Amino acid sequence: MLIKKTIEEMKEYVAFIKSKGETIGFVPTMGYLHEGHLDLVRKAKEFTPHVVVSIFVNPTQFGPNEDLARYPRDFERDEKLCAQTGVECIFYPEPAEIYPDGYSTYITVEGLSEGLCGVSRPIHFRGVATVVAKLFNIVEPDFAVFGQKDYQQLAVIKRMVKDLNMKVNVIGHPTVREADGLAMSSRNAYLTTEERAKAVILNLSLKRAVELFKAGETAASEIRNEVVSMIEATPGCIIDYVEIVDWSSLKPVESITNESVMAIAVKLGKTRLIDNIRFDA
Amino acid sequence: MLIKKTIEEMKEYVAFIKSKGETIGFVPTMGYLHEGHLDLVRKAKEFTPHVVVSIFVNPTQFGPNEDLARYPRDFERDEKLCAQTGVECIFYPEPAEIYPDGYSTYITVEGLSEGLCGVSRPIHFRGVATVVAKLFNIVEPDFAVFGQKDYQQLAVIKRMVKDLNMKVNVIGHPTVREADGLAMSSRNAYLTTEERAKAVILNLSLKRAVELFKAGETAASEIRNEVVSMIEATPGCIIDYVEIVDWSSLKPVESITNESVMAIAVKLGKTRLIDNIRFDA
Repeated sequence: MLIKKTIEEMKEYVAFIKSKGETIGFVPTMGYLHEGHLDLVRKAKEFTPHVVVSIFVNPTQFGPNEDLARYPRDFERDEKLCAQTGVECIFYPEPAEIYPDGYSTYITVEGLSEGLCGVSRPIHFRGVATVVAKLFNIVEPDFAVFGQKDYQQLAVIKRMVKDLNMKVNVIGHPTVREADGLAMSSRNAYLTTEERAKAVILNLSLKRAVELFKAGETAASEIRNEVVSMIEATPGCIIDYVEIVDWSSLKPVESITNESVMAIAVKLGKTRLIDNIRFDA
Repeated sequence: MLIKKTIEEMKEYVAFIKSKGETIGFVPTMGYLHEGHLDLVRKAKEFTPHVVVSIFVNPTQFGPNEDLARYPRDFERDEKLCAQTGVECIFYPEPAEIYPDGYSTYITVEGLSEGLCGVSRPIHFRGVATVVAKLFNIVEPDFAVFGQKDYQQLAVIKRMVKDLNMKVNVIGHPTVREADGLAMSSRNAYLTTEERAKAVILNLSLKRAVELFKAGETAASEIRNEVVSMIEATPGCIIDYVEIVDWSSLKPVESITNESVMAIAVKLGKTRLIDNIRFDA
């Protein structure tokens, strides 16, 4: 397995693969890999043997009071997991390689970036769109696989790729969950034992929402109230948002259909967790 | 000469050239071509026989009170000029092809976009950066040639290409001028005979600025005052800005060096003209 730390080295690898007329699959990550990331790699490997994983904790997607400094990092462990899963190349740049002095360019996806996580994290998706565009231009992937756990991120990236006429094929892949249903996330490492036990409420409440819909309830306000009650009944859980939105526009809906998505963000202590479910689940 | 109106058709042409391992040169324009544009085409032809010219009056770079609706257009004439100059392919899309319903993504180059023309045209360079990025992704040029008349635009595009790790080589090409020194511009077509006669003051005052510098004056305020006086002495000329800036950062300088640029924008009636000169000219 190759490890490339500079853009120059990365481009040489890309040029070599392209010169053989072969395709590149790409899984951008912030490292501290878990089974969810590895499942994205496995998905990418269905398309091509040349799978690149980037490991880069992207500073531009963190707000000033967010967890950039304490975001978990363990490159040796990540390297091992990538090798075991058949990654061909890791791109592992320093922040100054991606954002050198004088860096000034940002990509904004209006509308989609503004609701849900965009309310409490106003610059987050600008940072995500910008770094993903840069990584796409460096890695030139034919396929890029993103987890559906970060549902809004996936929507923003799909929109950017379409709007900017980028060549990459963006694939959304289902959320991988722990045995009790908690969506896998590098941020789960922040949770105390007590918080970890409570965190299952995110998935439980989403499943309850779908259950109610399947039983005939279509009023978003009703189902939202039920989910809010369940989360609020769990001591220590602070709701950031509980929203039912259209799967594509991410605009709130009043009447739920199979194309609706329920998306939630909840704080447990210092840790902010997100999850979502489609009502056709 | 080929004329492609859709992105799909354009991409087929690009794929064909790339499949032969050959390079593409690109000159993005808003049409109503003049000798300045044709000189950019000739420059591009030094690198490759496959030169694409785009003709697209980009709505996102015009403010609400600007001249989008009356911007001059004459595709038949442009077509003839392109054919005579050896253009291989014109990309001539409709606005809805470039900005379909739901379009949401914009690229901002901070800092460089904010001074000079950015003061009176706050969304202009966002529109320019966005459309140029889209055109680069569609045309996949190896070389793209831009006129130095639009000095700030060139700086913004170079910065974007560097920041977003785009593969294209951006080439700045010297301003082409009328016999009396007026920089060629599609907007010169707006000028009345009287205004046209007065418009020469832009170039005259810039040349005077360089003359003063070459005679030993380095105080930006002194040279700026002289240029302002010359323009204000021309009845009907309203100054938008007269600035002396660093060639790369576009930040105002107090002491002029060979790396300084004088950039000016002047309104004559309803027509806003720009010009610039480097002090090492």
